[in-house]
Amino acid sequence: MNEAVARLLQNPVSFLADAPSDDEISISTRVRLARNLADFPFPTAATPAQAAAVREAVERAIRETAPFDTGALFLPIRDLTDNEKDLLFERHLASRELLTDRTGEGALIVADDERDSIMVNEEDHLRLQAIGPGCRLDEVYAAVDRLENRLAAQLPFAYDEKLGCLTSCPTNVGTGMRASVMLHLPGLVISNQITAVRHGISHLHCTVRGVFGEGSDNRGNLFQISNQSTLGLTEQEILIRLGDVIRQVIEHERITRAQLLEKNRHAIFDYIGRSYGMLRYAYRLSVEDALNALSGLRLSVDLGMFRSVDRHLVNDLFLHTHPAHLQQYAGCELTPGEADIRRAEFFRERLRTAALP
Amino acid sequence: MNEAVARLLQNPVSFLADAPSDDEISISTRVRLARNLADFPFPTAATPAQAAAVREAVERAIRETAPFDTGALFLPIRDLTDNEKDLLFERHLASRELLTDRTGEGALIVADDERDSIMVNEEDHLRLQAIGPGCRLDEVYAAVDRLENRLAAQLPFAYDEKLGCLTSCPTNVGTGMRASVMLHLPGLVISNQITAVRHGISHLHCTVRGVFGEGSDNRGNLFQISNQSTLGLTEQEILIRLGDVIRQVIEHERITRAQLLEKNRHAIFDYIGRSYGMLRYAYRLSVEDALNALSGLRLSVDLGMFRSVDRHLVNDLFLHTHPAHLQQYAGCELTPGEADIRRAEFFRERLRTAALP
Repeated sequence: MNEAVARLLQNPVSFLADAPSDDEISISTRVRLARNLADFPFPTAATPAQAAAVREAVERAIRETAPFDTGALFLPIRDLTDNEKDLLFERHLASRELLTDRTGEGALIVADDERDSIMVNEEDHLRLQAIGPGCRLDEVYAAVDRLENRLAAQLPFAYDEKLGCLTSCPTNVGTGMRASVMLHLPGLVISNQITAVRHGISHLHCTVRGVFGEGSDNRGNLFQISNQSTLGLTEQEILIRLGDVIRQVIEHERITRAQLLEKNRHAIFDYIGRSYGMLRYAYRLSVEDALNALSGLRLSVDLGMFRSVDRHLVNDLFLHTHPAHLQQYAGCELTPGEADIRRAEFFRERLRTAALP
Repeated sequence: MNEAVARLLQNPVSFLADAPSDDEISISTRVRLARNLADFPFPTAATPAQAAAVREAVERAIRETAPFDTGALFLPIRDLTDNEKDLLFERHLASRELLTDRTGEGALIVADDERDSIMVNEEDHLRLQAIGPGCRLDEVYAAVDRLENRLAAQLPFAYDEKLGCLTSCPTNVGTGMRASVMLHLPGLVISNQITAVRHGISHLHCTVRGVFGEGSDNRGNLFQISNQSTLGLTEQEILIRLGDVIRQVIEHERITRAQLLEKNRHAIFDYIGRSYGMLRYAYRLSVEDALNALSGLRLSVDLGMFRSVDRHLVNDLFLHTHPAHLQQYAGCELTPGEADIRRAEFFRERLRTAALP
């Protein structure tokens, strides 16, 4: 296995880092900046030689400026196996776009601790990304901004006085920034308010997507809320607006949970209990079944219902629900049917062990 | 509460008595004989005075012949509350027909140990019943036949040399006998063979019904197979034919289970595991959910899957799934919604305690 990937697998996954306990509804914050080198065509139009030159320029800049607070791992996409690619995708470090490697010169450069990373030759020359636990827009933006400043000293980014940063896709022109917070909203789903909430959010210039970016996906009751526009506002203005929306959604979820607990306590407990019972005793678990039941388990942690289950365990189970991480754990290739059986086995083992004092 | 009913509640329920461990597919055997007194009109046509005279004659015969091997409890239907009636129904001691008490003179007379019982002024003047664990047609028939002989010494039963016993409904004329065995057939249900099996049985002059007599009910994967005809054959001939059919069905279930375990082991384990997980952790359980999951639990006992669960526990849970027994246990009236919550609580308690060493 690729050494850099093996090194990454030892990390706790950054987008699943344990958030502060008073911030149980927001899972993680992610901010990415799209940047392009002034002297090269965008990757969508670059020749292989031009793409290679971009990659070399970025790698040189990384080595010379050492922009991460920790060491850097270099992962050329073409060196990766399919399962290694899937592992990076499941860890939210690489997009499907990067992994298709259209130029043959795509690369992921990632800080040792997985918090900061750079996709090279994705849709743009650089996609800088920082991740942090909970809802921390300012802090995570500061991290990616610091990364950008360090690189800008060395790399001439394409910039227009009037438009701001130039990007491959017009929707990213301006700040090139996409900030998003992943929220766990079982209360709004159970109470059938999620569709109205999603609709409302879209009118506030924000976008709601599923855990892996799918448009209308409710799997696991996890939702990423991000800014829609990148043009005509400063980064700070965008972050303030987005933060306001997210705080409203969190508050709505909190109130809904409290109402459900007051008026329909047994429905909530039943949802959680059946989720736990299934995860602990099933012998075949699909990804969908597992993600939905994990939402119940995560809610049980928020309510302190099962002493043997904590957020750390839920995050570990969540990660191993996904095929590449499950396969990595199993140590062999798995058909979808075998994966369902192995997944259930993993859950049974972890939850049985967790139940011991 | 009615003293006789309170006395009965201390018994293990006869139709759920623990069967021998090599007889795990058949739950219980029941044989009933319809008899009428020669000198009175059938209950469907009797005046209240005539019905009262029948009841008094039967009660007198019971007191004088002491036909049960144990003491007898007398329960006039009119003295019972609705919940007491439901308790008797759930224990398979009284039919709905008896409990409507059309003559006002209906009564249940039951042996202390619940194995033998007599319904008075149901559709016929007397319905004699014996119950035993497992598949024991000869033994259970012998018990009810002994009861009939002892009473016949005292009571003149309506009898026609050509037709045999005369009964209110023509389908019972002849032997007046209905013998049935309750079978647990999860293998045939899971493998989608149950419809074909039911169809096949109906061509062999047998009837298949659900656990409480419902026609096409698969609840809990429990089925009662009984003889269709009572005329033109001796009791022995009927029992031999019925026994043959039942042995075939049991063998079919055994083979199917073995095949499922060999070819689709995880499907069976998953069915059992999810059943157990739900029963152990749900906070709301409908009768239907509980009965179906109990089938999984019963199967787990047959397979020795959960050390903490035995047939005795499954039978206890089965009994308390039913509203009247659950209400009796709760000690207060329960709406259906409250019953679902209390039922889940009962299951959680019993299964948690059972899990302790």
